[in-house]
Amino acid sequence: MRKDIRIAGFGGQGILMCGIVIAKTASLFDDMYAVQTQSYGPEARGGASRTEVVISDEQIDYPKVESPEIFVAMSHEALLKYIGDIKENAILIIDPDLVYEDEIKDIIDQKNLVFYKSHATDVADKVIGKKIVANIVMLGSFVSATGLISEESTKKAILDSVPPGTEEMNLKAFEKGMKIVEKVN
Amino acid sequence: MRKDIRIAGFGGQGILMCGIVIAKTASLFDDMYAVQTQSYGPEARGGASRTEVVISDEQIDYPKVESPEIFVAMSHEALLKYIGDIKENAILIIDPDLVYEDEIKDIIDQKNLVFYKSHATDVADKVIGKKIVANIVMLGSFVSATGLISEESTKKAILDSVPPGTEEMNLKAFEKGMKIVEKVN
Repeated sequence: MRKDIRIAGFGGQGILMCGIVIAKTASLFDDMYAVQTQSYGPEARGGASRTEVVISDEQIDYPKVESPEIFVAMSHEALLKYIGDIKENAILIIDPDLVYEDEIKDIIDQKNLVFYKSHATDVADKVIGKKIVANIVMLGSFVSATGLISEESTKKAILDSVPPGTEEMNLKAFEKGMKIVEKVN
Repeated sequence: MRKDIRIAGFGGQGILMCGIVIAKTASLFDDMYAVQTQSYGPEARGGASRTEVVISDEQIDYPKVESPEIFVAMSHEALLKYIGDIKENAILIIDPDLVYEDEIKDIIDQKNLVFYKSHATDVADKVIGKKIVANIVMLGSFVSATGLISEESTKKAILDSVPPGTEEMNLKAFEKGMKIVEKVN
């Protein structure tokens, strides 16, 4: 059972941290293998950020994601840039405050995507009081929507990864993210 | 011009951060492409940590490092585990306080490695006063030994990556690392 995950947004949103926590959770606490890849290039200079994670119950020989089965998009630019090769019946999770949904209606239908929304950035800003934890809110939505990694293990990996002093805020952000995700279709 | 880099040690040494800073430097400030990969698995549970970075002046289609041209080892276990596939004439940089050199003499000769030592952990502890910046001391040694990325760009990427309030300490660690690396052969 191999799962290919892509998370994309813009620089400064903590996309990379989100990928690292998923990979750590899977491997350190959920007994799977994981490879996390971060690509940098002219696109990064333009502001887009993308991380990919492969998790599997077997050793991973090919770390590149060619056709993601789960795609989390936290910016419209990144969504359009990286949605082209998404797998049929894949799970798509977006932050609807940062994405124009109209432009992806066709691909959602064509590829028969399972479509979720999470107002991660808005909730991070207004409920938690720190926009910077939008990535961890989104991580909560990811765990809730996909069920790929466990809630308890993810919390351990968050505690293992965030700066000292921010643990409580990040756990709150994570729990909130698990609740707010809505399945659209 | 593609360069395959592997950095390995144990968990908590900041191996991943080291790889991220190299990838960021190459792409954001030195106008190259970079892919950074982090593998997690049973080996990670055992404490070994490994990150790989590919940098290139062209887009990188194959992100996996099969035969590193530069290998930085910050633990004996990681060194032995991951040195097997090192390229001939590759650059090897070790922290000699964490590695038993006798056990790698043969492979250094066989593969005709260019061999460097950096007392990164000791210097981080005794000169900088924080063992936790050993990774950034080693990064300085990496830049000095390989010349692959520029000093000024690396400093920018460090400032862009380390926690607020630790900038000065990390720059000092980096500069120290550039000076202390010794070429053995």
